[in-house]
Amino acid sequence: MKTLATYFSTEIPQINKTLESILADLSPFVRDIAVHVVLSGGKRLRPLLLVLFASILGCKKESVYLLASAFELLHSASLLHDDILDQAQSRRKKTAAHLVFGVTQTILAGDALFARASSLVAVEDNPRMMACFAEAMEKTVTAEVQELELLNRSDVSMEEYLEVITGKTAYLIQACCEFGVLAAGGTQEQLQAAKAYGLNVGIAFQLVDDALDYSAAEDISGKPQGGDLREGKLTLPLIFYLENLTAAQKESFWEEQRKGFSQHRFSEILQDINVQNCPQRTRQAAREYLEIATRELEIFPSGDPRKALQEIIEFIWQREK
Amino acid sequence: MKTLATYFSTEIPQINKTLESILADLSPFVRDIAVHVVLSGGKRLRPLLLVLFASILGCKKESVYLLASAFELLHSASLLHDDILDQAQSRRKKTAAHLVFGVTQTILAGDALFARASSLVAVEDNPRMMACFAEAMEKTVTAEVQELELLNRSDVSMEEYLEVITGKTAYLIQACCEFGVLAAGGTQEQLQAAKAYGLNVGIAFQLVDDALDYSAAEDISGKPQGGDLREGKLTLPLIFYLENLTAAQKESFWEEQRKGFSQHRFSEILQDINVQNCPQRTRQAAREYLEIATRELEIFPSGDPRKALQEIIEFIWQREK
Repeated sequence: MKTLATYFSTEIPQINKTLESILADLSPFVRDIAVHVVLSGGKRLRPLLLVLFASILGCKKESVYLLASAFELLHSASLLHDDILDQAQSRRKKTAAHLVFGVTQTILAGDALFARASSLVAVEDNPRMMACFAEAMEKTVTAEVQELELLNRSDVSMEEYLEVITGKTAYLIQACCEFGVLAAGGTQEQLQAAKAYGLNVGIAFQLVDDALDYSAAEDISGKPQGGDLREGKLTLPLIFYLENLTAAQKESFWEEQRKGFSQHRFSEILQDINVQNCPQRTRQAAREYLEIATRELEIFPSGDPRKALQEIIEFIWQREK
Repeated sequence: MKTLATYFSTEIPQINKTLESILADLSPFVRDIAVHVVLSGGKRLRPLLLVLFASILGCKKESVYLLASAFELLHSASLLHDDILDQAQSRRKKTAAHLVFGVTQTILAGDALFARASSLVAVEDNPRMMACFAEAMEKTVTAEVQELELLNRSDVSMEEYLEVITGKTAYLIQACCEFGVLAAGGTQEQLQAAKAYGLNVGIAFQLVDDALDYSAAEDISGKPQGGDLREGKLTLPLIFYLENLTAAQKESFWEEQRKGFSQHRFSEILQDINVQNCPQRTRQAAREYLEIATRELEIFPSGDPRKALQEIIEFIWQREK
């Protein structure tokens, strides 16, 4: 009987092998940057979801790995551009690409990965796939601009926050699940269920990510605790915290944030946020989405792939880094 | 009888109308940046070529304008990213987008335009178009990285230079011509001829562009004369000039360039380059490509669109800005 761990240990090498051969085929002018970001040990959640939804319907085509790789390339391209925007120093414990290769080369290498990803999808000769892929890309980058705009605001509603994380994270994950069913030639009902699973898993994934930013110690997560707090990024834990402040307290919070928190105040606020269970409440919100995702799996044939998709739900729920 | 001028005055408004309606449909988070670059009065050479090759085969489908617009969006996305790379201050006499809206928003808006352009092509449900479009995008950005690498070199062969301009300019123009014939359902022979026309016109277009950088006065071109010289960009006029220098002269040229030319030396070199006819020889090289393009048109039915495509060849040859 195959568990999620079995899939990780058998499918990820297969996905990586496909990615390596795609990267080898890129022009030498962008290859090093592409290798730097793509082969830096991501979780490969997106391609794995695609492979699992294809498997659940019995599809074992070789091309599934090419499509899965297309999503990893698209995700990687987006990471290259994101790290420039965020002025990130590192990514997955490696120096960020733009600091190694230069900003300009990194922008263009990201563009080249977008293009190659589209080429891989084009080969499938499936207009629905092509439209879905381009739309997922557009939604992802548009939501990133929206997120940047929110950075200048001192109040963000839960609805706006959910709109941003749906856009920047969930649509692409939804598209991966949709592609798995499309590759396998599933029914409309299966397609809708896979999309709903992906959307809800995607939202939950980002909610847990945002909770971990406040609750996970650096030695476990590899990222400094409270990075979003320092940046004044209005994710759900901070939205919850600010709800309990008076107008005057809020104003002074933003004044301190703009100037840069003192180490003492930073620790104090971080502790308050944890004492008030803001990260836990964020995880609780994720729970609701994961429950929907669980129900969406019911229409699929039972067996190892479905079990693994259920385990992905558990994996997201229990994530500690 | 319709001339190129007639096509410009009837087709460009139609293309612009289509572009405006596409832009109106973009998310408000990227729309302003997109409008800034797309509706800033470009020549619309790429979409016009697509429309003309469709017309030459009698195709009047509405969707031709959507496809033509997809290429203008792709080109605009590429301009947004290029202007960041080149740290350009202005584009078509307007302040460059990244200086108005910020670098990060501009990178993402470029990505969104790439994505929307792909969506427009996906609608056509033509796998050859999709593959051609993605490939043109990849070749364009890859050649831009190659061009950046050449900036660090003090010697570039004519072959390398031609490789770069073919990649960064000609493939996209080739793809526009190819799309026109694909939209009209032309024969393989027509497809090959349209591609060859586009490739050769594209190379010639860039050669003339590079010649104008040295020969066109700022009050005509709107760009400072000799910008490529100041940057040390090895385009053909400079390659010709350097060929006639001794090793010692070359070394001192690059030393001065690195430090920044004095105004006196800059004018002196610019004059030398013009006296030695380097821009004219570059134009002469363009002539050969334009002659090939002329011959490629012969297999198409005669009439107004073919005449206009011939006039485009004259237009490129006579360009003074």
